Amino acid sequence: MSKEEVVLLDFWASPFCGRVKIALAEKGVEYENREEDVLGSKSELLLNSNPIHKKVPVLLHNGKPVCESTVIVNYIDEAWPSPPLLPTCPYERARARFWGDFIDKKIFEGGAKIWGSKGEALEVGKKDFIEILKQLEGTLGEKDFFCGDNFGFVDILLIPLTTWFYAYEKFGGFKVEDECPKFSVWVKRCMQRESVAKALPEPEKVYEAVVMLRKMNGIE
Amino acid sequence: MSKEEVVLLDFWASPFCGRVKIALAEKGVEYENREEDVLGSKSELLLNSNPIHKKVPVLLHNGKPVCESTVIVNYIDEAWPSPPLLPTCPYERARARFWGDFIDKKIFEGGAKIWGSKGEALEVGKKDFIEILKQLEGTLGEKDFFCGDNFGFVDILLIPLTTWFYAYEKFGGFKVEDECPKFSVWVKRCMQRESVAKALPEPEKVYEAVVMLRKMNGIE
Repeated sequence: MSKEEVVLLDFWASPFCGRVKIALAEKGVEYENREEDVLGSKSELLLNSNPIHKKVPVLLHNGKPVCESTVIVNYIDEAWPSPPLLPTCPYERARARFWGDFIDKKIFEGGAKIWGSKGEALEVGKKDFIEILKQLEGTLGEKDFFCGDNFGFVDILLIPLTTWFYAYEKFGGFKVEDECPKFSVWVKRCMQRESVAKALPEPEKVYEAVVMLRKMNGIE
Repeated sequence: MSKEEVVLLDFWASPFCGRVKIALAEKGVEYENREEDVLGSKSELLLNSNPIHKKVPVLLHNGKPVCESTVIVNYIDEAWPSPPLLPTCPYERARARFWGDFIDKKIFEGGAKIWGSKGEALEVGKKDFIEILKQLEGTLGEKDFFCGDNFGFVDILLIPLTTWFYAYEKFGGFKVEDECPKFSVWVKRCMQRESVAKALPEPEKVYEAVVMLRKMNGIE
């Protein structure tokens, strides 16, 4: 096989880009990272590669674009099969995809109901968010990672989203560790992996970005 | 292998249940269909099998539940590999998953903005919905099915949703065929398959159910 060209159109604070960076690191794939100015002027390459959503992340593999982070992580697992991110048994794969879908539908949107609101709406958002985390903590159970002993698909989809939790805690006035202690142990366990630690931004930096987002959205 | 037990918890008008019925038919899998009273009293089996979402469809394979229709179709493709529903090449699989995700995010929710609203909101909903269909028509292009010559994953996710289009047309005052003629040819092509025709309800019956839904939601 000739040398592969792998390019990631990235934005540092995006948890969705974080997923792709972790998956590529887990597979040992070298790639070129191109930071996009997502709040300002998006590159022609981004607009042409993802004309439907016009969003990062986009993975360009030998020039061919793959869009949407969960689709990209699935693609990475199939294009570079070793080590596998999804379990091998169809039933366990379905369970992993079910929780991936749950995370996709609930976490980022749930968090926006905390940082993007105030007053009573914020209180409702906080309560709902903690309930979502408790559901995840329930399925994690006593396992090290969501699919068992090995860090994999569900962990990769979820851990980058936790870099926004410090901002949720600050605006919501709560501590994830107090509400979901086992979930918090899982976060720390994941953060000990080099693939994760190197891919993700400091929660304090994300908090500063969210402060700016709140101002842009007129929430004071 | 001992005889398999396959049970589907179903609701006749649900396009998401329709996906599972088509996928099982394409694979030649025999199953027991159990109609759920989704608007009234849900069965203990449904509540226990899908405690997170409490929704149909649920596929029980030898007693083990799989939930969420797109996850179920993926599972069916892996548990009964022949004939394949997803393409074999990783890049084409990612494309199929991308469009599956687009359909999951846009169509049913987009349709609800037509049947679930009135006045100006309905007009906006209609315009947006037609735009979504035009994007799908664009990616279909001159192909027979979304992934080429063979009926597969994307077709299975999309075709059951079209049984609600007659209701959207009636409430929106438009014709999909006038807006997206090639898309409409694809609908007719899919409906000629026995797996599809047998799985899906009459659009007129769905329309009557939507009329009832509008009344339940206080939209007159």
